[in-house]
Amino acid sequence: MKFTKTLFAGAALAALPTFAFAQEAAAPGFDEIGPYIMTTLLFLVAGFLVFFMAAGFAMLEAGLVRGKNVAMQLTKNIALFGFASIAYWLIGFNLMYPGDAWIIPGWVGPFFAVTSLEPVGLDAADAALDYASVASDFFFQLMFVAATASIVSGALAERIKLWPFLAFVVVLTGVMYPISGSWQWGGGWLSEIGFSDFAGSTIVHSVGGWAALAGALILGPRIGKYKDGRTIPMPGSNLALATLGTFILWLGWFGFNGGSQLAAGTVGDITDIGRIFANTNMAAAAGAIAALCLTQIMYKKVDLTMVLNGALAGLVSITAEPLAPSLFGALLTGAVGGVIVVFTVPLLDKLKIDDVVGAIPVHLCAGIWGTLAVAFYTGNWGAQITGIVAYGAFTFVAAGVVWFILKATVGIRVSEEAEINGLDMAELGMEAYPEFNKG
Amino acid sequence: MKFTKTLFAGAALAALPTFAFAQEAAAPGFDEIGPYIMTTLLFLVAGFLVFFMAAGFAMLEAGLVRGKNVAMQLTKNIALFGFASIAYWLIGFNLMYPGDAWIIPGWVGPFFAVTSLEPVGLDAADAALDYASVASDFFFQLMFVAATASIVSGALAERIKLWPFLAFVVVLTGVMYPISGSWQWGGGWLSEIGFSDFAGSTIVHSVGGWAALAGALILGPRIGKYKDGRTIPMPGSNLALATLGTFILWLGWFGFNGGSQLAAGTVGDITDIGRIFANTNMAAAAGAIAALCLTQIMYKKVDLTMVLNGALAGLVSITAEPLAPSLFGALLTGAVGGVIVVFTVPLLDKLKIDDVVGAIPVHLCAGIWGTLAVAFYTGNWGAQITGIVAYGAFTFVAAGVVWFILKATVGIRVSEEAEINGLDMAELGMEAYPEFNKG
Amino acid sequence: MKFTKTLFAGAALAALPTFAFAQEAAAPGFDEIGPYIMTTLLFLVAGFLVFFMAAGFAMLEAGLVRGKNVAMQLTKNIALFGFASIAYWLIGFNLMYPGDAWIIPGWVGPFFAVTSLEPVGLDAADAALDYASVASDFFFQLMFVAATASIVSGALAERIKLWPFLAFVVVLTGVMYPISGSWQWGGGWLSEIGFSDFAGSTIVHSVGGWAALAGALILGPRIGKYKDGRTIPMPGSNLALATLGTFILWLGWFGFNGGSQLAAGTVGDITDIGRIFANTNMAAAAGAIAALCLTQIMYKKVDLTMVLNGALAGLVSITAEPLAPSLFGALLTGAVGGVIVVFTVPLLDKLKIDDVVGAIPVHLCAGIWGTLAVAFYTGNWGAQITGIVAYGAFTFVAAGVVWFILKATVGIRVSEEAEINGLDMAELGMEAYPEFNKG
Repeated sequence: MKFTKTLFAGAALAALPTFAFAQEAAAPGFDEIGPYIMTTLLFLVAGFLVFFMAAGFAMLEAGLVRGKNVAMQLTKNIALFGFASIAYWLIGFNLMYPGDAWIIPGWVGPFFAVTSLEPVGLDAADAALDYASVASDFFFQLMFVAATASIVSGALAERIKLWPFLAFVVVLTGVMYPISGSWQWGGGWLSEIGFSDFAGSTIVHSVGGWAALAGALILGPRIGKYKDGRTIPMPGSNLALATLGTFILWLGWFGFNGGSQLAAGTVGDITDIGRIFANTNMAAAAGAIAALCLTQIMYKKVDLTMVLNGALAGLVSITAEPLAPSLFGALLTGAVGGVIVVFTVPLLDKLKIDDVVGAIPVHLCAGIWGTLAVAFYTGNWGAQITGIVAYGAFTFVAAGVVWFILKATVGIRVSEEAEINGLDMAELGMEAYPEFNKG
Repeated sequence: MKFTKTLFAGAALAALPTFAFAQEAAAPGFDEIGPYIMTTLLFLVAGFLVFFMAAGFAMLEAGLVRGKNVAMQLTKNIALFGFASIAYWLIGFNLMYPGDAWIIPGWVGPFFAVTSLEPVGLDAADAALDYASVASDFFFQLMFVAATASIVSGALAERIKLWPFLAFVVVLTGVMYPISGSWQWGGGWLSEIGFSDFAGSTIVHSVGGWAALAGALILGPRIGKYKDGRTIPMPGSNLALATLGTFILWLGWFGFNGGSQLAAGTVGDITDIGRIFANTNMAAAAGAIAALCLTQIMYKKVDLTMVLNGALAGLVSITAEPLAPSLFGALLTGAVGGVIVVFTVPLLDKLKIDDVVGAIPVHLCAGIWGTLAVAFYTGNWGAQITGIVAYGAFTFVAAGVVWFILKATVGIRVSEEAEINGLDMAELGMEAYPEFNKG
Repeated sequence: MKFTKTLFAGAALAALPTFAFAQEAAAPGFDEIGPYIMTTLLFLVAGFLVFFMAAGFAMLEAGLVRGKNVAMQLTKNIALFGFASIAYWLIGFNLMYPGDAWIIPGWVGPFFAVTSLEPVGLDAADAALDYASVASDFFFQLMFVAATASIVSGALAERIKLWPFLAFVVVLTGVMYPISGSWQWGGGWLSEIGFSDFAGSTIVHSVGGWAALAGALILGPRIGKYKDGRTIPMPGSNLALATLGTFILWLGWFGFNGGSQLAAGTVGDITDIGRIFANTNMAAAAGAIAALCLTQIMYKKVDLTMVLNGALAGLVSITAEPLAPSLFGALLTGAVGGVIVVFTVPLLDKLKIDDVVGAIPVHLCAGIWGTLAVAFYTGNWGAQITGIVAYGAFTFVAAGVVWFILKATVGIRVSEEAEINGLDMAELGMEAYPEFNKG
């Protein structure tokens, strides 16, 4: 409850002697509670940054689809975040972190949440002083699962039905991601063999990419995308929004990688987070510049969407290990990510896999690269490859099964007419830009 | 002053022995200053998040008005923030927090600010170590009053004159909001009877909604909005911006509710803020999903603007008590907010009250619900109802008087010609999107 | 590396007795490490806010250029950030902070970075406990140099070639800005004579403005801008984006000015940051309102782009001294900034200096005013004027030489045909808004 300030000041003055006494007697000092407070604060600040990535994905995708599908893409992005929030609370979080210490108090069964988090006004004596508030940790972890779902929405844009897509999101965020995430972050078998994925190049980004790839294969390309062996360009309707989305994602990534340090209350931890911020920024910069230079060299013209995706690929690449590399190492890691995007975007088109926003090159291909590159620091190539394969196999198969069931039952693709006229009018009956004439 | 780093490092080295000595002798340690530092930091971080809500309102409203009124809506949003900043400093803050301890040092009279905040380089011995920096608190509180004014600008868009609107903003932010706010947060009579409104479902959001409602009634609907008993849709010009605005508001709300804990320096407080973040997010998600499902059921089509307003209504609903509920309670609270929006938007149209962006359903109706719902936790239904009625009566009457005076003197409505041609060309002589043909 | 939570909890429990023992024996407590942690946190939070200003500049500039040049303006903004990140790391940072204590460990020579920052898991005994993590400081300082480059991109929009512009950015951010920055922030001669520029009205903003002015003079105005003694308006294509950009810059400025306190671990420092936040906001509000009122008085119509630039000019004005002024002083400082913009924008046009977004009035003119105004607090007019002249002379001449060399070798201006058709199709082969018909 919000204290009125006057009352609060009065109460505090009245209570001061008692409080001082209590402090001398028993209350733990900052040496004991400082790390808990700082790490909880880290989760809250990093968490709101990662939350904002939902806006980044929404703007990126809204900018890269054609005008007739923008309102639907926006709807999918806000709806997927809502469903992910509920599914991860109801099932996912507990499924992912099954350790005794990490069950949310008040859960009735192993997979079902009925009450809530720590009690209000937690006493320091009851807190996990060596970690952080469970509520803040839940908040932070929740934002990651939403990112995974956002990756899928971009790849399958402009042709997938709204509700089947949202059904997939519920399964992905409530069940699939938590199960595979627990292999590593829940203390499972991959963590035991020495697999390393700091903030989730594989666990978050590749998983989203694999789910998107399975969907893209089962859903098929947009009408008219591949014709007589050629790829027909379908340029995004608003590159300003796409650029804004990229910058927002870049911003959010400081929380994504920095928060994954999972501790901020010691000199070592806060200094490490500084390293992570600097490396994350360098990898994004290098990815963007690599794509800039490469498109200039290859096509004699810079391609802005490649630059945007290059920056994102740089970010995905450094996510598996943003702490260990030097700034030069981060530059190399990110630059390779940018190069990968420039080569894999046309490759997907050659394979007639229609990924509207380039989500698979950015999140899956660069995610694999970033995860592999960790072995330069750990030396454990086997564990890295095992992890990459395990996440790929599980997610691709599980997602494929879900997509297939959805396709066989309710259908996942809009009608041809709806696709040609645009999903906005056909499925929503509204337009994102009703006044701007279409060219 | 920014120390040069070299000088700083040198000075620090030179000063180190002295400093260490002073510390042993007298300087307070982190056990004493830590809570002050953390709570001040909370106000600063939460404050910049709430500041960013000004951008959120601007984008939401710019996206939901027609293209011919976008530049004016943007102008109103940035101008209202400017005037609110000045009026709240000049009059409002001191009017709202009249307690002795909370007068800004240097004020000449009770209601007039001539100088400034704490002295530069405040000594720990002179600080309110049981609270936070007054400057940070002022910064934080200021951002709330700006939100109130933003609510009004959305409802009255597309027909109100710029300067009379800004005159109203000055009265609202300098006088009306501070007076009624002081009833609770200034330690006034409502706080004494046990009314509870954690972060301002009523004190901020309903107050904005009541002021908007009074204005909408006196101003009348837009030309052509209600015709032969039917409501003519006037779709927003840019749903991508409206969605961006919603995400920005959602982000800012973590500061809005989290910062209202008003303390971050103990295990209990920081853990509570974690709870607040998780609950705030859950309520927003639930509001969005409730509106999504309900519009699908009722209209067989999802309505994106309802989903956006549903998320916002979920946020408004949880604002009165974001701490006490479990995550499931937050879900219910937010979902009811989303349902309220879906039903009250057409209801307002039936009453021919023209609210361009849905501000009254979102901020007033969901605000009342959220404030009422607090009684499930406090049991004090009487105090909640008293508060809701008191804020409603005072704000509706006071705002009505101000609107009426403005109408009777300078006029508040643009000419019919200006309204039809759009406020942008008529009042500003410029267009927001001069190159995009109008459909 | 991200600990799995279960493992982490287990490890922590196992380690607890040892840790407790170590703590009693040797580990420094929060009294010693708290300030380091808080200041490092300040750099990280302020740093990500200033990072986000890159998005603000991109949106502001994309909104103020014509539709046919939007994609190019976006490309320039993301590319300049990438190159600035690399150049400042490779050369700039070390050039700017040459003091022994501030060389990044592992640099091979004085100006060339080959490795990286502090070691992972820094021990408290090895940390600069009287300051902050070098990594976080590097991250924070890097964001400032990017802002300088963004200023240039806006002024020279719609006619400069991409690659020569980027070449200039590399020299500006790698060499010019660091050299002149070191005069003050690196402990150089200007800091010794008492020049004062808290967060960089001159060192960052005027420097960007001088570089832009030199470029604008050498590049010449856009075709058709000045005709028969008249200035032809070329209105921006998207004022919603321009407004969004302004709000994002305003948000980022809390980090820009607040972070420049360079310390957050004492009562005095965190309270000062509160003052800085409140003053920064007040100056922005006053700049916006001053421009609003002045354009109404002078032109009988409010000019939204002037209001936006007024807010930014208020921010630039307070940047040289956001701490010392009272709120009233901040209001005056910012208001004068807003007035300066309203008068200098048409003045530049009279001089046929074509500054597309108003960067020179905002950053150079208001920057000079803000730097001068510091003398009201320090009394040292001579030092302020010396600094202003020194930065102006050095940057204008150095930038002029670089622009001249670029012009004489590779050329800096696109062909007449490309300029008329728009840089997007001519240089990039893509459009920002391919579906929105041009008026």
